[in-house]
Amino acid sequence: MRTLFRNGRIINVFTDTVQETNVLIDGERIIGVGAYSCEDADSVVDVSGKVICPGLIDGHIHIESTMLNPAEFVRACLPHGTTTVIADPHEIANVSGLYGIGYMIETSRKLPMTVYYVVPSCVPATEFDESGGVLNAQDIAVLFNDPYVIGLGEMMNFPGVISGVPDVMAKIGAAHKAGKLINGHAPMISGAELDRYIAAGIFDDHECSTIEEALERLNKGQWIMIRQGTAARDLEALLPLFEEPLSRRCLLVTDDKHPADLLHNGHIDSIIRQAVQKGAPVLTAVRMATLQAAQRFGLNDLGAIAPGYQADLLILDDLETMRVKDVYRRGVKVVTDGQTLPFADPQIRPDIWKTVRNSVMLRKLDSAMFHIEPGRGPCRVIRVIPDQLITKEYRTELDLTENNGVDTEKDIIKLAVIERHVDSGHIGLGYITGLGIRKGAIASSVSHDSHNLIVAGVTDEDMTVAANHIREIGGGLAVVCDGRVLADMPLPIAGLMGLGTASEMAEQNRKVREAAAGLGSAPGIEPFMNLAFVSLPVIPDIKMTTQGLVDVNAWKRVPLFADNADKA
Amino acid sequence: MRTLFRNGRIINVFTDTVQETNVLIDGERIIGVGAYSCEDADSVVDVSGKVICPGLIDGHIHIESTMLNPAEFVRACLPHGTTTVIADPHEIANVSGLYGIGYMIETSRKLPMTVYYVVPSCVPATEFDESGGVLNAQDIAVLFNDPYVIGLGEMMNFPGVISGVPDVMAKIGAAHKAGKLINGHAPMISGAELDRYIAAGIFDDHECSTIEEALERLNKGQWIMIRQGTAARDLEALLPLFEEPLSRRCLLVTDDKHPADLLHNGHIDSIIRQAVQKGAPVLTAVRMATLQAAQRFGLNDLGAIAPGYQADLLILDDLETMRVKDVYRRGVKVVTDGQTLPFADPQIRPDIWKTVRNSVMLRKLDSAMFHIEPGRGPCRVIRVIPDQLITKEYRTELDLTENNGVDTEKDIIKLAVIERHVDSGHIGLGYITGLGIRKGAIASSVSHDSHNLIVAGVTDEDMTVAANHIREIGGGLAVVCDGRVLADMPLPIAGLMGLGTASEMAEQNRKVREAAAGLGSAPGIEPFMNLAFVSLPVIPDIKMTTQGLVDVNAWKRVPLFADNADKA
Repeated sequence: MRTLFRNGRIINVFTDTVQETNVLIDGERIIGVGAYSCEDADSVVDVSGKVICPGLIDGHIHIESTMLNPAEFVRACLPHGTTTVIADPHEIANVSGLYGIGYMIETSRKLPMTVYYVVPSCVPATEFDESGGVLNAQDIAVLFNDPYVIGLGEMMNFPGVISGVPDVMAKIGAAHKAGKLINGHAPMISGAELDRYIAAGIFDDHECSTIEEALERLNKGQWIMIRQGTAARDLEALLPLFEEPLSRRCLLVTDDKHPADLLHNGHIDSIIRQAVQKGAPVLTAVRMATLQAAQRFGLNDLGAIAPGYQADLLILDDLETMRVKDVYRRGVKVVTDGQTLPFADPQIRPDIWKTVRNSVMLRKLDSAMFHIEPGRGPCRVIRVIPDQLITKEYRTELDLTENNGVDTEKDIIKLAVIERHVDSGHIGLGYITGLGIRKGAIASSVSHDSHNLIVAGVTDEDMTVAANHIREIGGGLAVVCDGRVLADMPLPIAGLMGLGTASEMAEQNRKVREAAAGLGSAPGIEPFMNLAFVSLPVIPDIKMTTQGLVDVNAWKRVPLFADNADKA
Repeated sequence: MRTLFRNGRIINVFTDTVQETNVLIDGERIIGVGAYSCEDADSVVDVSGKVICPGLIDGHIHIESTMLNPAEFVRACLPHGTTTVIADPHEIANVSGLYGIGYMIETSRKLPMTVYYVVPSCVPATEFDESGGVLNAQDIAVLFNDPYVIGLGEMMNFPGVISGVPDVMAKIGAAHKAGKLINGHAPMISGAELDRYIAAGIFDDHECSTIEEALERLNKGQWIMIRQGTAARDLEALLPLFEEPLSRRCLLVTDDKHPADLLHNGHIDSIIRQAVQKGAPVLTAVRMATLQAAQRFGLNDLGAIAPGYQADLLILDDLETMRVKDVYRRGVKVVTDGQTLPFADPQIRPDIWKTVRNSVMLRKLDSAMFHIEPGRGPCRVIRVIPDQLITKEYRTELDLTENNGVDTEKDIIKLAVIERHVDSGHIGLGYITGLGIRKGAIASSVSHDSHNLIVAGVTDEDMTVAANHIREIGGGLAVVCDGRVLADMPLPIAGLMGLGTASEMAEQNRKVREAAAGLGSAPGIEPFMNLAFVSLPVIPDIKMTTQGLVDVNAWKRVPLFADNADKA
């Protein structure tokens, strides 16, 4: 079945030009670019005045952070011209291990988008984490046999690489042995430490937030993934990379995208628009988002309009706005006039489905579990910082006889992280300041990277109701006040992803955030977002885990009350 | 074992810059580039004022055409800075099949150069050829399991690709299935035919001799291998490719290099020098010859001075002349002051060695074999053309009663191609004009692509002596006059490669060419070179095979005497 796209303006990413010509496809492939006529094809699509752009590629994304399951993710991204993503299922791997990764890969295989995976390299993230999944070097080596697995995911344990920790090096060795690439994640290090990290064969990074960081890495051979996601936004700082000859070693990635942002602003198309608005040449930005992303990942038939390439074509009204009208993926029309065409939801293996749909393994909670016993000395309260993921330790004397230490006047409320993968009963308890919450409680099964159940609240009762509600809906977000659930967002797939469409999920997300704001607010604070990183003991200074506080800088557990014996 | 290269000027192929800094290597790998000191290393090499360049890569070469065996080839190339080649053992495969390829791969594995192979795709070259080896799709699929085999060699049968010949498509399919790339070879076609060819997944070409050819291919996604060998010299025509953004899709290759040229002018270094002389930016030329060659072949740790890269370093006195002083390959010094350091000759498996060393399977010849019986009508004489590989048919009436048709006054001498692989007794007999030979005979076991024994001479007796001499020395070149061998060049490895050093082989080659010239000469004719292509029925117009003449344009066998019945 041959289709001719007639009279288009083709973006040629090999020569940075736009050429008026025709494109002939046969089934899944482009078979010709040039002077073809209607006689050469079974059907003809007139694209006079339109631009044909290669399908866009996101070189690094955690699909889970969109809160959409893979099918809905694809439905939401296709109208933005994304036809290929390289996904790192780090979040679901922390919850459901190999089954979680299996869920993502199996679900994606037949979707109308090319979804490649990298195997998460750091599950669990730290020795302090109690995750649902554990991936060792052997597990990783087995996963490398899957044709859709093309690399080892971002190696966040850069201290482990630099100091040569055997377990870390075994994972890296497995990648080299299988001929797979390794994604980087090593912010802020430089010089000899950076060299050691790269020398392990880690040839890209998406964590550059300054041009200096980026230039050092690019000079040392790393591909620079210019990240512009919902939270982390590096584009502005990295604009000089759109100049020659630097641009040829860069790609565009999102890393994390929230559903509303994806829905309203777009995906890689939005990064291109923003780059152009800031002065970058559009053809350079498109090349980064197509050919070069494919090059980095060794995908030799993706990312260009040329014979032998996969027929992933975007029909744009014009080049400058990158507004996508129609999308063809492997030669099949999947988006028409900006609307994704219907496709069947993927069949999911029952054992996989059962595992990821029953991820909140938790007995029914009782408010007594949230009670904190007094200790000796000042209390270590976690202070969240506006617009940042780092936290600070705030030491203060607390009177536990009054509301068990909660003091909304001082903005000190209670915090709990409850292990939810094997129902061990482990619970980390303490206090948090800075959220601005003055009543009720919020709870979430999205809490990096182990995604245990995190709860913050004013009363033990509301915390109990919120936590039990998450348990009942099988994972998600909830806002509770005076014993009543004000809003929730069910995420029954591993407690991370929902069943709804992007617009449904965005709307649910809007409602829970609004309800949470109604409990009290502080400028620069997004309660669920901040909370989601309060449990991640790789970001300084102090974090809460299922077994209590961790001093990230000292890399050890510390007691809630400073003068209690160390819990290390 | 760590070595510091201190105070060098490093060519950075990622940024097209030269940077004054230090390089730290550990064993085979570069582990750091930057502010390192002597304390970081076990030994220090001071390279103040010198340039450090990544080892050069030849993306396409037939080692056999140097007439050097792989070890001597490496000894000759290292002082020119070549540390990696992608070799296509097409010639030896036509003689010794899988054993021939095995000889090349096994011999190269431990040499101080990284030698990757592509599997020849067209053995034998045509249905008219009687080759010693035959490679079908199954053989090719097996060879793809070797880690040093990275692709399918130049697909010369472009008509077969364009028309979808099953056997050709099976080989291409085997490459795709194994995830191997495919090298192109499709001169002169364009438009829809070129598209069909590229669409088969053939993403490079080294046969562009005009800028128009190159630009069409580059626009359609092919990597352009700018070829500058001993005979085919495309650099001048392709100079515009050194401009941006075209340069980033190009590499530098030699294809065929003769021993004297290699010895006296150099290898890839010489192409860089020539390009610079003609106005190309040196850093662009170096990038083509390093990083981009590696990119084309997916060799992610070759072609740059950066952490994690293989420690293939050239120490140059200065950038402009590209004169190589010292060479380090995988961290080991292999060239000092322009001299290759000694290394052991490789061990060769006895069965392989026996096969390639006994490639001239031929009974002792008798002069009666060269006698031609008269036929009906005018005789088809092959006319060689100065400075070209194509031939023309020259029809003339011959009187076979006089010297069996040989007429040196008219420059018509006798031509024979004798099957030498299975001693079938097949012999193609006829006449050739244009060589200028007026006495004696020359014989050679180098005759593309089947490398049967080709002989041209004035008397049957001298032809017999020359042919029998080749038989006795187990392959090579010989010049005979009046029953005496004037000069010879033994090529006992498959009749293609010798045992001597590059300078010995160049000297032998000079002598046989000189001796051949002494038999008579014509301007623009190099008798052994022209003869080597007189048997290749893919180059127009008329060629001699072991079973007689082939009309290449009509793609059929034709009788020597025009009015004899067709031999088809």
